[in-house]
Amino acid sequence: MARASKHGIQERERKFLIKKLPANLLRFSHNDIEQGYLAIPRSNSRASEVRIRRTGREYMLTVKRGRGDTRDETEVPIAAASARRLWPLTAGARVRKVRYKIPYHGLKIELDVYRGRLRGLAVAEVEFPSVAAMKKFRPPDWFGREVTGKDAYSNSRLATFGSGATARARI
Amino acid sequence: MARASKHGIQERERKFLIKKLPANLLRFSHNDIEQGYLAIPRSNSRASEVRIRRTGREYMLTVKRGRGDTRDETEVPIAAASARRLWPLTAGARVRKVRYKIPYHGLKIELDVYRGRLRGLAVAEVEFPSVAAMKKFRPPDWFGREVTGKDAYSNSRLATFGSGATARARI
Repeated sequence: MARASKHGIQERERKFLIKKLPANLLRFSHNDIEQGYLAIPRSNSRASEVRIRRTGREYMLTVKRGRGDTRDETEVPIAAASARRLWPLTAGARVRKVRYKIPYHGLKIELDVYRGRLRGLAVAEVEFPSVAAMKKFRPPDWFGREVTGKDAYSNSRLATFGSGATARARI
Repeated sequence: MARASKHGIQERERKFLIKKLPANLLRFSHNDIEQGYLAIPRSNSRASEVRIRRTGREYMLTVKRGRGDTRDETEVPIAAASARRLWPLTAGARVRKVRYKIPYHGLKIELDVYRGRLRGLAVAEVEFPSVAAMKKFRPPDWFGREVTGKDAYSNSRLATFGSGATARARI
């Protein structure tokens, strides 16, 4: 999803809604992910987004700054006991999803199939090795509308204002 | 500074500017504290404030919600390596201070003497066992104007908009 840069990680990726899930999804590597937001900046703010993510038994604290297709991201491990104490503070700002990692012409598609309140929504992100590769990417036919950089489909917006975006994006 | 409550910690305290530092400050227990903010909500926002604090070699991650004299606060330890990776994200939103713990008629005064850009500013907080005790408190003569609940003297505001508040508060 992201590439290392001097001050953490800078994302170079495109995001698409999904028209139709690929067959036999379970043959791909996948993880249950639950994430909750401690801080969500307003749109166009330069403030940081702060998130706790659980993947299996592992907890990470992630801080993101910036918007659009380049974004600084710093992620650090956090003890399970600490994460569990902070979790109640994310009430009303959570998403649950299964993330599938799908190889595609030398690239990696990360397909997020949402659960819970957002069930029916699926979004794919593709990470690229260069800006040129990012621009010339031809999406597979199961991809739908591109939503790269669209705030409404960021996980933080889905977590809090999900209903509006969901109505447009359900597959 | 704070009392345990069901969902973390609820503060019951008053805050004062300091007219004149007490003599022989160093006889009181004190710590160097450095703190930086990952997220600072706007005034009157219900969003969370997220902070890293270093006290000596110990790092804590703190999330606060709410405003005024009752405020939810959850604080968890964070590994030094994680804290150091997150620290660059707090640039432009940091304070350094020495915190003195001063016993006073069965209460505890926490006196923060700021360093660096805020040098010259000192603020005291007093924690109370009950609302009644909080209301009947008679401040010592070295205390100045009360600033309880005043956003301008919160550490997060001092960290980012310090110059304005400092001009009014220097001792």
